[in-house]
Amino acid sequence: MFDVVVVGGGPAGLTAAVYALRRGMKTVVVTPEIGGRVMLAHHVENYPGFISITGPDLVKKMEEQIRKNHPDCDFVMDSVYDVKKVKGFFEILLKSRKKISGKSVIIATGTEDKSLKIKGEREFLGKGVTYCSTCDSPLFRNKVVAVVGGGNSALVGVQEVSPYASKVYLIHRRSEFRGDVVEVERVKKLRNAEFVLDEEVMEVYGDTVVKGLKLKSGKNLKVDGLFIEIGVTPLTQFIKKLGVKVTSQGFVEVNDKQETSVDGVFAAGDITTKNANLLQIVHATSEGAIAGFFASTFVNDL
Amino acid sequence: MFDVVVVGGGPAGLTAAVYALRRGMKTVVVTPEIGGRVMLAHHVENYPGFISITGPDLVKKMEEQIRKNHPDCDFVMDSVYDVKKVKGFFEILLKSRKKISGKSVIIATGTEDKSLKIKGEREFLGKGVTYCSTCDSPLFRNKVVAVVGGGNSALVGVQEVSPYASKVYLIHRRSEFRGDVVEVERVKKLRNAEFVLDEEVMEVYGDTVVKGLKLKSGKNLKVDGLFIEIGVTPLTQFIKKLGVKVTSQGFVEVNDKQETSVDGVFAAGDITTKNANLLQIVHATSEGAIAGFFASTFVNDL
Repeated sequence: MFDVVVVGGGPAGLTAAVYALRRGMKTVVVTPEIGGRVMLAHHVENYPGFISITGPDLVKKMEEQIRKNHPDCDFVMDSVYDVKKVKGFFEILLKSRKKISGKSVIIATGTEDKSLKIKGEREFLGKGVTYCSTCDSPLFRNKVVAVVGGGNSALVGVQEVSPYASKVYLIHRRSEFRGDVVEVERVKKLRNAEFVLDEEVMEVYGDTVVKGLKLKSGKNLKVDGLFIEIGVTPLTQFIKKLGVKVTSQGFVEVNDKQETSVDGVFAAGDITTKNANLLQIVHATSEGAIAGFFASTFVNDL
Repeated sequence: MFDVVVVGGGPAGLTAAVYALRRGMKTVVVTPEIGGRVMLAHHVENYPGFISITGPDLVKKMEEQIRKNHPDCDFVMDSVYDVKKVKGFFEILLKSRKKISGKSVIIATGTEDKSLKIKGEREFLGKGVTYCSTCDSPLFRNKVVAVVGGGNSALVGVQEVSPYASKVYLIHRRSEFRGDVVEVERVKKLRNAEFVLDEEVMEVYGDTVVKGLKLKSGKNLKVDGLFIEIGVTPLTQFIKKLGVKVTSQGFVEVNDKQETSVDGVFAAGDITTKNANLLQIVHATSEGAIAGFFASTFVNDL
């Protein structure tokens, strides 16, 4: 029987484990792999303490920190298939059919970027194609870029890359935006932004790096970068069955202590409502710390 | 005229600067020194990404990150004497009588630990005396320690050090606690905690490290460590004059965007109400990122 079962091995989950372990909790991290969405980050320059580091290297350091300081922490490299509350405790069924029992659960499964599923998208990932304008804008100084999307992520993305790029196209398949009017107005004010509406990206082409986009209208658009900002999908397969309250998009609702609607279940990182607008590593770790701390208090109170 | 004036050079202020700079803001950090409360941390083992690092080394890395990635960032090594809003902009008067103008202000001045002001307290700082149980508990494995204080910081502090220490005394000068009843009950449940009430610590003694405490009653208490958990003082000298809403203890009230009650003024880190219970580096950086991001949006909207 574990005190704290952390589901997810990205920055949120690993930090939650650190804070629980430091409070003397018998802790296990269940995750198919160390990392998560951070593994796609090629140059992290906005996580305090590192001039520039890759996402995989950063999360590796977080893992080493646990393995060195808390050799008693368990890691189970597996996915969670189901979680049930039985007599006040949690039974976690894994994909491998193994079972784990815990007094508390921290959900830190994160999100997956929605993809366009077009030719070249995967091939040029990190070579001009990115899913995070907050992270990667400074890499496109004096470049021509396109942002694709119709929600706030895309509209804010254009504002983030605008100070760097020489030109920013905002490509949206409709003529109206799903995002807030205030964000549309902010984009209109930018000196170097241009709307490309009722248009879709069909293919990304290039050589070693992105050179341009083939559009549905048949036109080609020469760009050095493509920001795909069409949202994220929360990874919540097992969560609904547990009865945890989620938004219509699937984000887990939490309070200031990272408590969910189910007693003993906490959530942290990209998966929560708190993070829905600014999915940054620095927020994931902060939420993880709070979740680990208060899950420990919860266990001590049992 | 700066876009963003960050007041404070600890983890919150430096991260706020990073996020503002990345959005293309002309940014200045005003602070008497790089660092703050973090400078007192001898072994930071709960900041994700570092197995173990000193507070001064960590904050030095955060400073290097700005100087390397954003050589255009200004640093003014001075204290803020006064801030006035004049015609929609902010005039920041420094102790040196120099003036700075800004379109937005981020308050990240942090807090100072309250001290007992007793003999040995300063001498044994980092040699057994600490102000942060959340940070330093794991350093006292199998040691005898005392926590002093009567509020939640002290009561939670005992819970944090209890899994490590062989014995924890909770010394309080009254017989009733100012903290929550639920926290008092949690301490009562601990196997190794003992209340020492109506008692005060008059002196810390030792050789190279702490050996014990002289108490007001005349008794000596042999301990290896002393956690002084009598609260923190927010560093807010100039803030009240600016009209920013603060709590009765002086913490700045902020919303989810780190906005204060004054338009264009943001706050982040230990100084805010958000952080009042868990003053961790990881939360300071998270709040700093949000403040830097939304201060930039505020400036772009002007």
